[in-house]
Amino acid sequence: MEPGTVRIAVDLLGGDDAPAVVVDGALRALRADPDLRLLLVGPAEVADGLIAVLRPADRDRVAVRPVRDVAAMNGDPAAIVRTDTTIQAAVAAVVSGAADAVLSAGATGATVTAAVLGFGRWPGVRRPALVATVPALDGSVVLLDVGGSLEARPATLARHAVLGAAYAAVTHGVSQPRVGLLSIGTEPGKGDRIRRAADPVLAEQAMPAGAGYVGLVEGYDVSNGRRADVVVTDGFTGNVLLKGIEGAYAMAGGPPERGGAPRAAALLGVAGAVVVCHGAARPDDVASGIALAAHLHRRRTIPAVSALLAEFTAAAGRATDTEVTA
Amino acid sequence: MEPGTVRIAVDLLGGDDAPAVVVDGALRALRADPDLRLLLVGPAEVADGLIAVLRPADRDRVAVRPVRDVAAMNGDPAAIVRTDTTIQAAVAAVVSGAADAVLSAGATGATVTAAVLGFGRWPGVRRPALVATVPALDGSVVLLDVGGSLEARPATLARHAVLGAAYAAVTHGVSQPRVGLLSIGTEPGKGDRIRRAADPVLAEQAMPAGAGYVGLVEGYDVSNGRRADVVVTDGFTGNVLLKGIEGAYAMAGGPPERGGAPRAAALLGVAGAVVVCHGAARPDDVASGIALAAHLHRRRTIPAVSALLAEFTAAAGRATDTEVTA
Repeated sequence: MEPGTVRIAVDLLGGDDAPAVVVDGALRALRADPDLRLLLVGPAEVADGLIAVLRPADRDRVAVRPVRDVAAMNGDPAAIVRTDTTIQAAVAAVVSGAADAVLSAGATGATVTAAVLGFGRWPGVRRPALVATVPALDGSVVLLDVGGSLEARPATLARHAVLGAAYAAVTHGVSQPRVGLLSIGTEPGKGDRIRRAADPVLAEQAMPAGAGYVGLVEGYDVSNGRRADVVVTDGFTGNVLLKGIEGAYAMAGGPPERGGAPRAAALLGVAGAVVVCHGAARPDDVASGIALAAHLHRRRTIPAVSALLAEFTAAAGRATDTEVTA
Repeated sequence: MEPGTVRIAVDLLGGDDAPAVVVDGALRALRADPDLRLLLVGPAEVADGLIAVLRPADRDRVAVRPVRDVAAMNGDPAAIVRTDTTIQAAVAAVVSGAADAVLSAGATGATVTAAVLGFGRWPGVRRPALVATVPALDGSVVLLDVGGSLEARPATLARHAVLGAAYAAVTHGVSQPRVGLLSIGTEPGKGDRIRRAADPVLAEQAMPAGAGYVGLVEGYDVSNGRRADVVVTDGFTGNVLLKGIEGAYAMAGGPPERGGAPRAAALLGVAGAVVVCHGAARPDDVASGIALAAHLHRRRTIPAVSALLAEFTAAAGRATDTEVTA
């Protein structure tokens, strides 16, 4: 466990089996990490129930922000702007300095919208991406998007490549990350219409951290790691693939020693640390999501990725622009 | 091993590492199944090399159809109509009665085109689908499409549902198969634009064998089997998912006892038995594809699925039509 006090705002009402699963996961996270503090965002009676089962000495590690409304799983994500939902309140707590990062197993669309409105987007990011780190035979693979934006366009995939390269360099210390585009074969021309259009766009895309495009990769490359350090796809395909890997490990009798499918993903593209678990998350998944949120804050991952991207954009600007930038 | 002589036309030039991998796979298949006969379709010297390593007693189990051209992996699939390729010749051998089924690890597009032109499509099928049987915690799951048609439309997904239900009933003896649509959550409204449009279309779709639509399913349901017997998706997503499961098993140290990711898929929608291995197939994959082709012929799977669909279409016609049909 990394040292350093960290405060995570936890959305008590996010997830299919909330609040019970979230409460259970929060308790596990508190036991596992003595420097962890939680800000419980949700109904006061749920938070009080959690605090009641803590040892008295641990009770000052938990604070409460009472909120009653949950963002709808299926409604128009923009509709949540009008009400004070748990995810909005969790984001607001980070904005105001009361917490360091957000964890939610609620509707991804609502979480992304709340994060965009609360934290603001990074320059050049239209729609943030969810990024997951998949343990692989060779090291690990950064996979994005796994559900942040569902409709793929070549420009979005090219933006994911830039974000993923920066994330791999910052979080995994990969120098010159190899970036691949997920498709159904490795020869140029393989794939659906979007992949065929995106392949040449990615080949021309300048990337940070000395990253290079290696072309098309396939589903097994995500658990293999031999061909690419970063695998780029749309949020629909990435989400299906990640859950497919999870299902395969369940069928195989459990996750491999080197680590199973990631149970939580980080949001990339907003000026704040947000971690998303899927709606069917179990208590261990929630605990693992809280641990990832704590890790992102302790390692200052989000500001570091943002700074790397700003430096890269400025350098690209100097290379193509005669204007002097401050 | 099921009894009964069966003759498989093998495309010697299909696959990234053809012909070596195909030759090796064909030898393994011959050793494993004493009633298997092969028609080797490709360069005579390659076929002769294979025959030379057989025991003399086995040499009459192998025939040769000399062809030099391979269908391009990336070119326009329609272009192959103009040349006599190995996959076209393999299909032609089945049409003429010289073989019972086709195996190829070559370009899927070229194989589908050759099969459509050689065998003809089933009524109502615009584009055939590749169907894979995935071993699951509960039984097995029929997944389609895994690469036959890459661009998804709601009508195509509805057609896959019908084909998959018939295949599950015929090959796995599933009565009243449960059919799910692959998405990124189970609540209605989850998914990208295509899935949101297809969900109500599938809910209204009449299906054979008493099949019923169970709604949206997720990536892990394919290795789980608890929610659906048939999982419907577009060929791009299905191919990525299948290879993702394969990669996870490699990461887990090998396939589970109950069976790993399928190494071959059957083509559904044409009036002939065709099995496709992916381009990166290894010798065991080719042998497993040949065994699947033999199984399809011995069990008369393709005619049985076709008959079930014809009966279903006729019954649906009687139910909605006042005309008397012969």
